[in-house]
Amino acid sequence: MNETGRPQDFPLSNPRADRVRDVAKLAGRPARLKRRQFLAEGPQAVREALTLHRKKMDAGEYGLVREVYANEACLDRYPEFEELAEGVNARLATDDVLAAMADTVTPQGIIAVCDFVDVSLRDVLDARPRLIAVLCQVRDPGNAGTVLRAADAAGADAVVLTGSSVDIYNPKAVRSTAGSLFHLPVVLGADVEELVAECRARGIGVLAADGYGKLNLDRLQDESAARRLGSSTAGSDYALESPTVWLFGNEAQGLSEAELALADHRVAVPVYGAAESLNLGTAATVCLYASARSQQD
Amino acid sequence: MNETGRPQDFPLSNPRADRVRDVAKLAGRPARLKRRQFLAEGPQAVREALTLHRKKMDAGEYGLVREVYANEACLDRYPEFEELAEGVNARLATDDVLAAMADTVTPQGIIAVCDFVDVSLRDVLDARPRLIAVLCQVRDPGNAGTVLRAADAAGADAVVLTGSSVDIYNPKAVRSTAGSLFHLPVVLGADVEELVAECRARGIGVLAADGYGKLNLDRLQDESAARRLGSSTAGSDYALESPTVWLFGNEAQGLSEAELALADHRVAVPVYGAAESLNLGTAATVCLYASARSQQD
Repeated sequence: MNETGRPQDFPLSNPRADRVRDVAKLAGRPARLKRRQFLAEGPQAVREALTLHRKKMDAGEYGLVREVYANEACLDRYPEFEELAEGVNARLATDDVLAAMADTVTPQGIIAVCDFVDVSLRDVLDARPRLIAVLCQVRDPGNAGTVLRAADAAGADAVVLTGSSVDIYNPKAVRSTAGSLFHLPVVLGADVEELVAECRARGIGVLAADGYGKLNLDRLQDESAARRLGSSTAGSDYALESPTVWLFGNEAQGLSEAELALADHRVAVPVYGAAESLNLGTAATVCLYASARSQQD
Repeated sequence: MNETGRPQDFPLSNPRADRVRDVAKLAGRPARLKRRQFLAEGPQAVREALTLHRKKMDAGEYGLVREVYANEACLDRYPEFEELAEGVNARLATDDVLAAMADTVTPQGIIAVCDFVDVSLRDVLDARPRLIAVLCQVRDPGNAGTVLRAADAAGADAVVLTGSSVDIYNPKAVRSTAGSLFHLPVVLGADVEELVAECRARGIGVLAADGYGKLNLDRLQDESAARRLGSSTAGSDYALESPTVWLFGNEAQGLSEAELALADHRVAVPVYGAAESLNLGTAATVCLYASARSQQD
């Protein structure tokens, strides 16, 4: 580092260099799986990745950000990236190099190579979670990212993707999480049957978000509000304030019959207008926020 | 029409024909503005457009669907499109022609040319609306479409886009509304200052969705629930069950200071987790659903 804190060596300038190609390959799943690494692009994602990296280092773990490539303009604009955390290899790069590395046309001047961040289902369950979102066979990276971001906003304890869902380390998915991928534990490749059995053994209720559900989310919310406000002590079909795992299905077909059969209840988000259905992100937002509100003390 | 109800003439097969080019031009804004027409692509959008068309014809209006182009496979799969409504020109077309007409790579075998559907602000306000969503300077067609769909699901009476917002007739925006563009009135090119003045004169409350808002949406919902459940008659800062117009801002910057200053209250959607902010679609969903629930009898 020189006195401005920047890497001293010349910027990487050859877009066809091996190192550049190695980074670019992480846009593809085979390279990601082989190296157990993925790309975080843009200042927001890299900032969140570094924050988690420092937390891990403080906890005596190995960290997660391995390499950071940035151009001069980015460092001028965000001086915070001049002082990188321990264990991170930083290198200046030209715009051409960044463009060759990135999945996006405009990586906004900074890219990080990160280790996979997913955790085991057991770790999540042992932490006594109160709210979990499960994505079953969700195919679109943008949808998966949006639900992850909504789960983060709703304060969910974890997001679980089943084995048949999209790869959350896909650059488009990482982008659409807007940093939330580094905020809450994510479990990948889960088997939904095993997950439900484990949750049930721990007393966690299992709700399926289903347009044709018998239970109405509004009624569950009203009943929960009544209990919270002390205006009723009556029981209901499901106490929304109790620990809950929500199952969300594929964007086109919803949950399969087999997945629906696993749940304790099928819950419909009310559609007040003429919309035929809710999109996945909207439905997940309403469900997770309903649980989060009911669980507030 | 022959006995299967299909157009009898040969399918349109020349992707370079003037008629095909004329349709394709509607992917661009200048042609749309000049002809006051836009494209609906795919079975769902065309179905919703035809439903609204029939309603208009029944009401003695001119309808809205002008031309429908479909391939044989689409008519085999969706026989409903064989019998088109009065006033609609139907024509079989080859896949090449549909691909040349469409904005999408896969138009799913059917495309309709529709007249603009937007209405005037005065028409919306004269219908005594209870819930309106206003998009201020929203730039992304996908975001605008998602909010329109969420507004439809929440039973909003109208969606208003200010003059500086994205063109809702952009093919990507039309697609992301998933048919909702044909479900509820949409006002385009509105002036937010004038809109707020008109709403206020009619006793409609104006709320700004703002991450830094002083009022907390959860508290407003709780207070409204308490009144509905009869457990409290206490007043609050804002009665969420009253007629309300929500202002939503640009996806990157939120609402401008000038827009915020127009609102009666700035209301924050609570973020329970570590998410830095909510994306526009998530925030609008939570706000509109909160109003819709409070307004239910």
